[in-house]
Amino acid sequence: MASQSVVSSSPRVLRVAVVGVGLVGGEFVDQLLSFPRSNPFRIVSLSSTKTTLFSPDGLDLSPSTWKQSLTQSGLKPDLDFLSRQLLSLVKPGQDVVFVDNTSSNEVAALYPRFLKYGVHVITPNKKAFSAELSLHESIMSASLESGARFLNEATVGAGLPIISTLKDLVATGDKVVTKIEGVFSGTMSYIFNEFSSGKEGGPSFSSVVKIAREKGYTEPHPADDLNGADVARKLTILSRYVPSLRSALKDGYKSVSTKSLVPPQLEDVETGGEFIRRLPEFDAQFNQMRADAFKEGKVLRFAGVIDVESGVIKADLEKYPTTHPFATALGGSDNIVMFHTERYGARPLVVQGAGAGAAVTAMGVMSDLLKLV
Amino acid sequence: MASQSVVSSSPRVLRVAVVGVGLVGGEFVDQLLSFPRSNPFRIVSLSSTKTTLFSPDGLDLSPSTWKQSLTQSGLKPDLDFLSRQLLSLVKPGQDVVFVDNTSSNEVAALYPRFLKYGVHVITPNKKAFSAELSLHESIMSASLESGARFLNEATVGAGLPIISTLKDLVATGDKVVTKIEGVFSGTMSYIFNEFSSGKEGGPSFSSVVKIAREKGYTEPHPADDLNGADVARKLTILSRYVPSLRSALKDGYKSVSTKSLVPPQLEDVETGGEFIRRLPEFDAQFNQMRADAFKEGKVLRFAGVIDVESGVIKADLEKYPTTHPFATALGGSDNIVMFHTERYGARPLVVQGAGAGAAVTAMGVMSDLLKLV
Ligand SMILES: NC(=O)c1ccc[n+]([C@@H]2O[C@H](COP(=O)([O-])OP(=O)(O)OC[C@H]3O[C@@H](n4cnc5c(N)ncnc54)[C@H](OP(=O)(O)O)[C@@H]3O)[C@@H](O)[C@H]2O)c1
Ligand SMILES: NC(=O)c1ccc[n+]([C@@H]2O[C@H](COP(=O)([O-])OP(=O)(O)OC[C@H]3O[C@@H](n4cnc5c(N)ncnc54)[C@H](OP(=O)(O)O)[C@@H]3O)[C@@H](O)[C@H]2O)c1
Repeated sequence: MASQSVVSSSPRVLRVAVVGVGLVGGEFVDQLLSFPRSNPFRIVSLSSTKTTLFSPDGLDLSPSTWKQSLTQSGLKPDLDFLSRQLLSLVKPGQDVVFVDNTSSNEVAALYPRFLKYGVHVITPNKKAFSAELSLHESIMSASLESGARFLNEATVGAGLPIISTLKDLVATGDKVVTKIEGVFSGTMSYIFNEFSSGKEGGPSFSSVVKIAREKGYTEPHPADDLNGADVARKLTILSRYVPSLRSALKDGYKSVSTKSLVPPQLEDVETGGEFIRRLPEFDAQFNQMRADAFKEGKVLRFAGVIDVESGVIKADLEKYPTTHPFATALGGSDNIVMFHTERYGARPLVVQGAGAGAAVTAMGVMSDLLKLV
Repeated sequence: MASQSVVSSSPRVLRVAVVGVGLVGGEFVDQLLSFPRSNPFRIVSLSSTKTTLFSPDGLDLSPSTWKQSLTQSGLKPDLDFLSRQLLSLVKPGQDVVFVDNTSSNEVAALYPRFLKYGVHVITPNKKAFSAELSLHESIMSASLESGARFLNEATVGAGLPIISTLKDLVATGDKVVTKIEGVFSGTMSYIFNEFSSGKEGGPSFSSVVKIAREKGYTEPHPADDLNGADVARKLTILSRYVPSLRSALKDGYKSVSTKSLVPPQLEDVETGGEFIRRLPEFDAQFNQMRADAFKEGKVLRFAGVIDVESGVIKADLEKYPTTHPFATALGGSDNIVMFHTERYGARPLVVQGAGAGAAVTAMGVMSDLLKLV
């Protein structure tokens, strides 16, 4: 009588191919292998840039030895071969999932083909979803054509429920979201929480960036964080879930109005070390901005704003009153996102917490995977 | 080739029976009828306590006239008849969903039977999930048996993603959640945001409660909010998603250690009006508590705590430093929930926003419904 009882008699199996086993990917494989309940997942492939493993019926992996098995594999990774194999595994009732834990454009370019032929795609990799509109459209239409899903929760806010919340808001009503505003970069969050605490004065900008780099909070070359592109990418990803903005950013993150904090004179500095050495030359400018904000009773935060009504999408260094949640509630490298909606009225819906880190990012990937079960 | 292409050729239909069309239910029906995309939902029944409509292939309703159609229906509601009809509609590929927008125990008692025979249950009604453990267990096992799902996101925090976030945290790792702490009652939030703002003195407790009642923020009888039971119910619902606490509360919300703010002398006061009239007799006590908190640099908040490690589950009037998010970030009748986890380390994952109101609650119900598509 029950509509889904078929499911319990022949448990569904999901074949999972994992490309990228670095910080996030490694943690993801660990979480997947220690998944506690009756495990519907079979890992059919693992790949780094150097080696790969593949077995259509599932690899025999253990949490303690999978890394070694992969390293010792004689097989070189071959995305073309892997793609053909995965497509051939798609059958009714037999789901195949491609998990991209790289930051590679080459890997991201495969999504349309996977989706078109029924392979689901799950990823924390921002590249495809923040690129030019045409790639995004081919992803959307491939997914619609086959019914295969793409899930990218971890691209914004890592394990925080940001994309899922936005999807829910949008799905339950037209025009409901009026504005999205947040601190989307864990690195920028840390830097400005330290640099601009709301008290007078404080450490120099260059010293804060130097310490952030030493702690591993920045990319090896800090300009890759300070240029604002990461925030612009996240804004692009979010804006494409807002119906009226779906086609707004033709060139993806490059169409976002983005303030770079990299001093023009340092734009061509090649190494991170050299960049850090020269950054103190610009401390006076940052000091001035902090002092100006302080005079107005404000702090500096690198924020992303999507103003749905006006269509403005920007990543910029903004001033917020010391009583604003971006000033009072943030700590560490927290992300915070405020969804202003018609339903929630004057009080926004807020999601906050660590927006980076391998464990929480892998959790975001894992929770996407569980949505397919 | 695509595993789910069957779906696109024969679109799935979900038959939805709605019981309760008050504040939340009415808004829910409006949202469902104006659902923008290709609508997979057929409303097969609507019921209030007075009248009902039923048509197995879907009622012909419009956003502007459904209320009138229901009121003018000659049919009296009959839960037994409705149940039998719904069970007979369950067929492979034909989902049936029972949406309970009442606060009735009688309606809640039907869930196990619905679930057992394959009818999904979606509800903002806290009664079943916060009752004795045996009812919860029969709901769980009925759902497991048939594969039919029960979704109750709106029982805690209305439209805020609280239950879904907890489920994700738990599903992606054993023992990950160490503590859940929050302001779970919109009414209590409003009362203490007004009463204890962190400054010295302030309005009397009775005057704040009186205004809250006039604004419609409290139940008609404010003791129904001040007794803490609503918070205890929400804690019960959440704790049952935490594996190690699943069976902790044998008597449901009655097993939660709950501080009632109803003065013992007023426990038997029958009407809300009389209660409000006598409450000023106890203002001195509340003033004293506020002054004590102020001396320690703290505010008063009625909070719920689930300490997973120690197993303590309590609803109590607590003191928080004026720098704590429960003091700085709350406004209006906001809810806030902090999830402390091993993965998120010292910085919790925080969800905040309006935790009551018909529109946002209906949105929570609607987003559960969309999870079935
Ligand atoms: N770390 C975070 O906190 C965080 C937060 C949110 C999102 N993300 C995103 O998550 C993704 C992974 O980040 P991560 O920190 O784990 O990076 P990572 O440590 O550098 O790992 C990247 C992995 O991808 C592999 N890889 C790269 N290109 C490949 C290719 N063409 N074929 C096969 N394997 C390839 C690398 O192989 P080798 O091992 O051979 O180098 C490595 O295993 C990125 O897109 C990042 O933006 C990360
Ligand atoms: N309002 C909020 O902000 C909020 C927030 C979170 C959760 N909730 C929960 O949402 C639920 C609904 O709340 P509400 O504010 O919408 O309540 P409400 O306005 O009192 O509406 C209750 C509805 O249920 C109907 N009803 C009650 N018993 C019934 C029965 N045995 N058979 C058929 N219909 C029955 C009532 O019929 P009549 O029209 O004939 O009276 C009415 O239409 C409650 O469980 C509440 O706790 C509400």
